[in-house]
Amino acid sequence: MKTFQVVGIGNAMVDVLAQAGEGFLADNGIEKGIMQLIDMPRAVELYSRIGLAREVSGGSAANTIAGIAHLGGRTAYVGKVKDDQLGAIFAHDLRAQGAVFETPMAAKSTEGQETGRCIILVTPDGERSMNTYLGWSEFLTPADIDPEQMAQAEWIYLEGYRFDGPDSQQAFAKAIKACKSAGGRVSITLSDPFCVERHRAAFRRMIIEDTDLLFANRAEMLSMYQTADLDAALSQAAAEVEIVACTDGANGAYVLSGGERWHVASVPTEVVDATGAGDLFAGAFLWGLTQGHSLETAGRLGCIAASEVISHIGARPEADLMALFRKHGAV
Amino acid sequence: MKTFQVVGIGNAMVDVLAQAGEGFLADNGIEKGIMQLIDMPRAVELYSRIGLAREVSGGSAANTIAGIAHLGGRTAYVGKVKDDQLGAIFAHDLRAQGAVFETPMAAKSTEGQETGRCIILVTPDGERSMNTYLGWSEFLTPADIDPEQMAQAEWIYLEGYRFDGPDSQQAFAKAIKACKSAGGRVSITLSDPFCVERHRAAFRRMIIEDTDLLFANRAEMLSMYQTADLDAALSQAAAEVEIVACTDGANGAYVLSGGERWHVASVPTEVVDATGAGDLFAGAFLWGLTQGHSLETAGRLGCIAASEVISHIGARPEADLMALFRKHGAV
Repeated sequence: MKTFQVVGIGNAMVDVLAQAGEGFLADNGIEKGIMQLIDMPRAVELYSRIGLAREVSGGSAANTIAGIAHLGGRTAYVGKVKDDQLGAIFAHDLRAQGAVFETPMAAKSTEGQETGRCIILVTPDGERSMNTYLGWSEFLTPADIDPEQMAQAEWIYLEGYRFDGPDSQQAFAKAIKACKSAGGRVSITLSDPFCVERHRAAFRRMIIEDTDLLFANRAEMLSMYQTADLDAALSQAAAEVEIVACTDGANGAYVLSGGERWHVASVPTEVVDATGAGDLFAGAFLWGLTQGHSLETAGRLGCIAASEVISHIGARPEADLMALFRKHGAV
Repeated sequence: MKTFQVVGIGNAMVDVLAQAGEGFLADNGIEKGIMQLIDMPRAVELYSRIGLAREVSGGSAANTIAGIAHLGGRTAYVGKVKDDQLGAIFAHDLRAQGAVFETPMAAKSTEGQETGRCIILVTPDGERSMNTYLGWSEFLTPADIDPEQMAQAEWIYLEGYRFDGPDSQQAFAKAIKACKSAGGRVSITLSDPFCVERHRAAFRRMIIEDTDLLFANRAEMLSMYQTADLDAALSQAAAEVEIVACTDGANGAYVLSGGERWHVASVPTEVVDATGAGDLFAGAFLWGLTQGHSLETAGRLGCIAASEVISHIGARPEADLMALFRKHGAV
């Protein structure tokens, strides 16, 4: 038995969540519903303008791994924080869920960057607009990848956002090689349509050459295959990857594999804060696969977990996901 | 017109809130329902043991001032944080509510202390057990008090917790003198029964000599007057102070002044997290007085605000308090 069912790699950060009106987004030049990268001065300026905020651990792949740990999965995370107060919060919250997190924290005295944070503005419709200061998370390099840990993973899970760093793409390559050589499998999430736009060729290469399981949402899938037709994009993806899992908001999710295709309905919920929906879908889906559930069931688990995380502020589960799975008769 | 309706002085800190069972309190030697002071090593150890946490700005008087600012009151806060990440969070959240906060932040490089934090464990009954690392908040001295700001306050509000520092008692004396000389009035909260135990003589002297309005809860009032009879304690307090406002949990609150006594019923609520109940009672009460409401109405406003803050996790209002006051026909 391998030590880990899933090892995730991504941008380690703390979310700063605040409510904001549509006018605030417009006044501050914030694109609604997507992730935009900001530098430290912009982070400071934006923070000074937002209202009462709350800080909770975030990071896309870290949310996924926290969800798997919450479900009792054997899981680990790789991502870079500094040994500062936000870094301590990030590390604590992952470990408190039962995930292994051993990436060394950079000394507080290291110049120039702090632990990454994401200022997330939640509009009254529950949509979230993310303003990401990558900070120390940007400096993930091959040196941060422990090949033995990757070899001990049934699955690795790679966060597309980290494609924004060339060294990190090399780190992914190192992780993939170590994982695959030991018989492990590779999953990747496209993360964001504009991130796909920035790195389409690199993503595509990795999808075709290395990926066993591709996660995306509708916008990312359309961006990847440069089409307005989701069916066409899904078919193309399914021809390139063994398993495709694509979320589609209130319409639920599609799972494609081996010429088959399943549609899984979403679980109706009042959307309080959409942050983490895709992350928790992926977490529950991967956990389901490692438990031997069918792809269709894994999709259902993903939709149930996503519905929990959008029903409250913050991107990590607050209710008992296993109890929800049972309540819905999914496990 | 004075610049400020209320200026509060207290321990500036960030709350670290986590859920815990009764067994966790017992296993870790935590006294339930009270505030206990801890040092940094204990804070680090305890934090490593608690589950998923969330960080929100706290500090007793700071919660009170945030509540007054939320209600549109002209208000300021004095308390010490460092120029670190938690200090930035604390300052932001006060200012985002509209409060003035000008206490200089100590440079990050200052040795030995960080911004204070309070690890609050919330048990299933909604009771909170507080583990306070005072950190930089402990070093409040007379030099931190701006006499002109105090002279510009209709009321000052002094947090009893800060009696744990001798320099801070002198800071209080300086603030009282400046406020009273300019015709302002002095309110104080006893904060905690064990804090009263530690500093009973100093509290008593301040109550008799300087205090116009005394806030306390049942346990603090009994500790102050060393009796098991709340009526006796209230009568004694009312003989020493112009206005006494004493909360009594689900039994509501008592307000005494000029030989009169009012009982105000609590607003029935499911208690999710009792943190901040007394703080928000005081905030709404003081705001009510500055708006010219009667003492009885001020007590009602206090009970309504307290019921809001105990209905969710965190010690600052999330719902619109003014709307709640109107809904209850209190304003």
